[in-house]
Amino acid sequence: MVYDTIGASPVAWAGKPYPAVRDVAERDGSTVVVPIGSLEQHGHHLPTSTDTILADAVATTAAERAADAMPVLVTPPIWTGHSPHHTPFGGTASLDGDDLLALLESVAETVLREGFDGLLLLNGHGGNGALVSSATSTIGAVHRAAEVLGVTYFDLGAERIGEIRDSDRGGAGHAGEVETSMLAHLRPDLVDLDAAEGTPWESPYDRSRDDLSHPGPLSAYADFDAYSETGAVGTPELATAEKGERFFEVFVDEVGDVLERLHAQASE
Amino acid sequence: MVYDTIGASPVAWAGKPYPAVRDVAERDGSTVVVPIGSLEQHGHHLPTSTDTILADAVATTAAERAADAMPVLVTPPIWTGHSPHHTPFGGTASLDGDDLLALLESVAETVLREGFDGLLLLNGHGGNGALVSSATSTIGAVHRAAEVLGVTYFDLGAERIGEIRDSDRGGAGHAGEVETSMLAHLRPDLVDLDAAEGTPWESPYDRSRDDLSHPGPLSAYADFDAYSETGAVGTPELATAEKGERFFEVFVDEVGDVLERLHAQASE
Amino acid sequence: MVYDTIGASPVAWAGKPYPAVRDVAERDGSTVVVPIGSLEQHGHHLPTSTDTILADAVATTAAERAADAMPVLVTPPIWTGHSPHHTPFGGTASLDGDDLLALLESVAETVLREGFDGLLLLNGHGGNGALVSSATSTIGAVHRAAEVLGVTYFDLGAERIGEIRDSDRGGAGHAGEVETSMLAHLRPDLVDLDAAEGTPWESPYDRSRDDLSHPGPLSAYADFDAYSETGAVGTPELATAEKGERFFEVFVDEVGDVLERLHAQASE
Amino acid sequence: MVYDTIGASPVAWAGKPYPAVRDVAERDGSTVVVPIGSLEQHGHHLPTSTDTILADAVATTAAERAADAMPVLVTPPIWTGHSPHHTPFGGTASLDGDDLLALLESVAETVLREGFDGLLLLNGHGGNGALVSSATSTIGAVHRAAEVLGVTYFDLGAERIGEIRDSDRGGAGHAGEVETSMLAHLRPDLVDLDAAEGTPWESPYDRSRDDLSHPGPLSAYADFDAYSETGAVGTPELATAEKGERFFEVFVDEVGDVLERLHAQASE
Amino acid sequence: MVYDTIGASPVAWAGKPYPAVRDVAERDGSTVVVPIGSLEQHGHHLPTSTDTILADAVATTAAERAADAMPVLVTPPIWTGHSPHHTPFGGTASLDGDDLLALLESVAETVLREGFDGLLLLNGHGGNGALVSSATSTIGAVHRAAEVLGVTYFDLGAERIGEIRDSDRGGAGHAGEVETSMLAHLRPDLVDLDAAEGTPWESPYDRSRDDLSHPGPLSAYADFDAYSETGAVGTPELATAEKGERFFEVFVDEVGDVLERLHAQASE
Amino acid sequence: MVYDTIGASPVAWAGKPYPAVRDVAERDGSTVVVPIGSLEQHGHHLPTSTDTILADAVATTAAERAADAMPVLVTPPIWTGHSPHHTPFGGTASLDGDDLLALLESVAETVLREGFDGLLLLNGHGGNGALVSSATSTIGAVHRAAEVLGVTYFDLGAERIGEIRDSDRGGAGHAGEVETSMLAHLRPDLVDLDAAEGTPWESPYDRSRDDLSHPGPLSAYADFDAYSETGAVGTPELATAEKGERFFEVFVDEVGDVLERLHAQASE
Repeated sequence: MVYDTIGASPVAWAGKPYPAVRDVAERDGSTVVVPIGSLEQHGHHLPTSTDTILADAVATTAAERAADAMPVLVTPPIWTGHSPHHTPFGGTASLDGDDLLALLESVAETVLREGFDGLLLLNGHGGNGALVSSATSTIGAVHRAAEVLGVTYFDLGAERIGEIRDSDRGGAGHAGEVETSMLAHLRPDLVDLDAAEGTPWESPYDRSRDDLSHPGPLSAYADFDAYSETGAVGTPELATAEKGERFFEVFVDEVGDVLERLHAQASE
Repeated sequence: MVYDTIGASPVAWAGKPYPAVRDVAERDGSTVVVPIGSLEQHGHHLPTSTDTILADAVATTAAERAADAMPVLVTPPIWTGHSPHHTPFGGTASLDGDDLLALLESVAETVLREGFDGLLLLNGHGGNGALVSSATSTIGAVHRAAEVLGVTYFDLGAERIGEIRDSDRGGAGHAGEVETSMLAHLRPDLVDLDAAEGTPWESPYDRSRDDLSHPGPLSAYADFDAYSETGAVGTPELATAEKGERFFEVFVDEVGDVLERLHAQASE
Repeated sequence: MVYDTIGASPVAWAGKPYPAVRDVAERDGSTVVVPIGSLEQHGHHLPTSTDTILADAVATTAAERAADAMPVLVTPPIWTGHSPHHTPFGGTASLDGDDLLALLESVAETVLREGFDGLLLLNGHGGNGALVSSATSTIGAVHRAAEVLGVTYFDLGAERIGEIRDSDRGGAGHAGEVETSMLAHLRPDLVDLDAAEGTPWESPYDRSRDDLSHPGPLSAYADFDAYSETGAVGTPELATAEKGERFFEVFVDEVGDVLERLHAQASE
Repeated sequence: MVYDTIGASPVAWAGKPYPAVRDVAERDGSTVVVPIGSLEQHGHHLPTSTDTILADAVATTAAERAADAMPVLVTPPIWTGHSPHHTPFGGTASLDGDDLLALLESVAETVLREGFDGLLLLNGHGGNGALVSSATSTIGAVHRAAEVLGVTYFDLGAERIGEIRDSDRGGAGHAGEVETSMLAHLRPDLVDLDAAEGTPWESPYDRSRDDLSHPGPLSAYADFDAYSETGAVGTPELATAEKGERFFEVFVDEVGDVLERLHAQASE
Repeated sequence: MVYDTIGASPVAWAGKPYPAVRDVAERDGSTVVVPIGSLEQHGHHLPTSTDTILADAVATTAAERAADAMPVLVTPPIWTGHSPHHTPFGGTASLDGDDLLALLESVAETVLREGFDGLLLLNGHGGNGALVSSATSTIGAVHRAAEVLGVTYFDLGAERIGEIRDSDRGGAGHAGEVETSMLAHLRPDLVDLDAAEGTPWESPYDRSRDDLSHPGPLSAYADFDAYSETGAVGTPELATAEKGERFFEVFVDEVGDVLERLHAQASE
Repeated sequence: MVYDTIGASPVAWAGKPYPAVRDVAERDGSTVVVPIGSLEQHGHHLPTSTDTILADAVATTAAERAADAMPVLVTPPIWTGHSPHHTPFGGTASLDGDDLLALLESVAETVLREGFDGLLLLNGHGGNGALVSSATSTIGAVHRAAEVLGVTYFDLGAERIGEIRDSDRGGAGHAGEVETSMLAHLRPDLVDLDAAEGTPWESPYDRSRDDLSHPGPLSAYADFDAYSETGAVGTPELATAEKGERFFEVFVDEVGDVLERLHAQASE
């Protein structure tokens, strides 16, 4: 199964001629999903496009499964994320925060003009999280007739993820157990499990996030070389493709629920 | 007790001549707090400056109590928040998201130039939350030598708040039990408890916030006239000044902890 | 009498619930005043918020006295001024010129949307003067149905001020006789008259301003450490609270005249 | 005598090859003048470029006379001014305020990089006045080693102008006695004195400008069709080329004084 | 052969962990290629991602072949192009011109920071052409140590293309013979040759482009519904996968020459 | 013959009172031409305003000749071009690319508001070329009812120029045979033929421009001090005023054709 082929999925906007896009947009409660990732260091064992691949795969699979019950399309993923905290390692492209916010607003503006009733910004990179949430508000305030949502997929389903994972809190970080497992499942050609080496995530602030599944109310800026020598944060050593499939199914399922609810709201 | 007097507090930057500001900035682990509120509708019973007053009061009181143990100052509050979802009611001033982000970056730029080692953006308005979090990242990426934090105060101490409040989930919303109680404690001259009337918060999305103390991973834009007829969301009818004092003490305590930890990190 | 309490005045937008703001906005010839100050060095004897306190006090008092005859509200003061020329001393926060201009435009946009017929930008900081005047034009050009004015309060009533002051030309500068006297009147808790020490204002250009009451056609940029060692320019040594009350009354009176005329124009 | 020929004057940057520009820039106290005008309606009798021609002529003539005593060059005039208040008449091009401010900053940035020690922004259009003054501050704050000035030429020499003119206060407005006379002197080919018809300037605010020679502290936005039917404000009917020469000499003389003083300051 | 798989190519930045990206960047004369496409209507027979797929395929294949002789990587394609002239048809996302320019500058800024010596912006969409050329200048002016190039691939090799194609001038337009043939070769799953129907390109201006292989000096804006009913311009009816392979080889060859020369320059 | 006098030409917008501008704008197929030049080094023998003078002269003369057959006006030339590649020599003012793009968009916005049916951006500086072409698209996309064109005049008539010139390919570069000859014809007072010394243009890329008459598809950024010691590129030594007149006539003729066709299109 290949998730990252431009236009290959039946829900890919990119693979359709324009009359087919219009047909979907015009149906009641039609929804478009924009996956948002990054191009940034993910330790020695994962490719720089990890977040982009995962956001794209979650979005596309969830939309494919929802497509019988609702009109939905997925745009190509945005790979130009906000990653200043990863630049000390290299291999990283990063937009400034206001530039990413403006890009998301522009894409939303132009996509909603087609007549879609709903929009889901589906993010896969922690550094984008607050900006995607900000964009939900700034886009929603302009397009009041549309239903506008934003979410970072790994903020969903924390409990269910907890039942699958082997690592303690701090093990599911940037390029840690969860991301590594999923990429080993989806794109084994790009993963080098032998090179997987990370440092468990320990935040100096007990109210800030210190695990993919443990967000916190406090935002604290820190360059990732303060957390990890390899760039990986968590315990990727515990990753397996088998767990990766299970993690992936949880996230796809969660996003599917969001899409179902979004469709219901957008149809009103 | 009056919290909103410009410069009256011993930790107010505004009340000091510049040599005194410099003295604080030059000490090891010096920190500046920027309270961020709004000017927006808060139902029929609370003033439009509710969020500004509360952010200012929490920040100032926490800093006053911390001032013996650390060098800390508080700027005047920023009252120009991001409130497009409240404009249908009127009484509301609102900056666009990118303009608020730029304003926070500018203030941080100029304040950190004074030589402070740490910065805490202390937000009191839900609509600012993601933008303040975004600002933490964009400011931190530019000022890497400084310790940069951001938080919305009511995202802290949810469990302790739960022990005090009388309302069910959905009762502590915009101008609901918690905000109303605190303002009744701090500024009774501006509160009309008899006019307090709200609608409990029910989000159409079970993964999005539906109470001050129940945040969720999903961001969903909605104009507040979809939630409430009066503009108040929650059960302000349950508010009392007595509970307000207790709520306030929890938040001040939580922010105090953040400041203490921030000081430790910024002193390294 | 305390001028700087958020929402305490009967003309304070900040102190009213939104229905009360709307009631004022809907009346014929309704006007909103936006005080604009700064947070910047004011010598060794005045607090950094001097301009903000004064702009707020003049605006609020003038509006209170006018409120019987016209519908008028005052927003909280904007304290993020344009003060690059004071940064060499420290204690100073400063927006870039275009950022302040954009902020004023945004505030005006959102405030005028409420339905006010008139807007007065009431400035208290010399460094903001040209930008506030620029904003009057850029705001007016967009909101042609509204009556839009801007003024720096100390540019008014020069002759009457001259009858009260004791200093020669050059004595009423930044943190000089006039500002110091007024703050000693309004907020004696924040003034240290014993520390008052300034250098009379001497401009190298005889066509540029060299006193609060002596503006000139020529604009000349100069860092204030070229004018003064303490940061104060003028003769604050001559300041008294008694004169401060008289100065203050002149400015309040002048602004009152402007408001009266503005109301008449905005009612047409 | 022709003033508006690109590069024809011995002080024109535009007329020199780059080594000659460099030679001037490298001399002690070297100064560059940027004339700023507009392209906007000037009644039925004056061309739309009136302000551009006059700013250019005053700047160039003053610089030519100063050139023996100081190193000075003049750039071509900027004709893209800020004129929203004239657009109801047509014939008018106008930049938004922030765009003009940005343009002036860019030109200054690039011009000062050549090594000039001083900069004079010489404005000839009322609508640009506050923006040019703002630019003086924003440019000066960035280029602290340079001496940066800004002035609207007709704000200079008011008393001397008063001795020459025949009109009462209100007669020297936009396309009024003074501008018309000067253009009749400098460019008679572009003036149609028979078509000269204006309305004396009466401001509804007695503290705002109501004559070229009577500025006021209050800024008030007003579209010019509220002042005048033809677009001309003042009494152009009184204009003569003879007076025009005398007015022109006053302004050239005033600007010459400014240049002399600027050179002295910039040489330090 | 699949061209559009994120990270699958040995020259894909996206498929490598960061240490491998750094290894390439550090070699002498290292070069990065950024493919730039669009998401826009391409008639009834081609998918909306046509330009993105083609720019990506040309860039990646040329880089793969060059990789033995030079250090080179390719980023994921940018699919957010400038396509206002296609929006009347729908199915089209489009950035404003300045937003695309800013995006290219940001990507270049961040990519060149990695240490690459050369940059090639490889564009595949006519509407982006001038902006990519503009970006070459604005990026080059900032990164003067790097070798910065930009080109629209179909502007290369016009003569060789002419030997292969069957259509007359006007037949190789937007979604015409050349693009359709190449996509039929590279991604037959996304092409519906039976639906291919276009209108030969006839420009009202004989000095402007009227065929992919016939550029002109004159730029003329026109919405594409003025040229074509289906959105396709040219004669896609003549397209075959066989010719597509030959066209593709020409462009890959031409870009290969550019890369070789760029490497030589960047190695100096 | 003098071409650069503001307002002296019968087709100069600048020389007309506003009612006369309106009269032209209201006629069917009315067109406005905006000449765009630069202020930049042009070797030791040409003035820094060379491109501005030439763009203005070509535009004005072509429009004068077309004026009998169509309603057409010319604005003053924009002299603030994009010239970063010339700054190493000095004598050069340069806007950033996005600032020039924004300026052109603003001028177009304001000029088209007058009611003109067509717009021609007539550029005379190579460094502006792509930006002017970009502006054609961004302006056209906003003003869809208007006919919007852009061209760099020396990209026209290459064949006819080739018949007149004496230099080989590479001889007609920046300040080379063609530009020098034309300026010697039009403004001999500003040309020093004895100082003419250039280096023939040799691009390292055979697909990029290496002569005014030999454009290429490849854009390559290079500072001009890499090409030439004097700043002049080409063989200005071959220039004569006689050839200059012939070159000029070719370009005027070409632009005349463009205007004629533009008028026809704009009249529909």
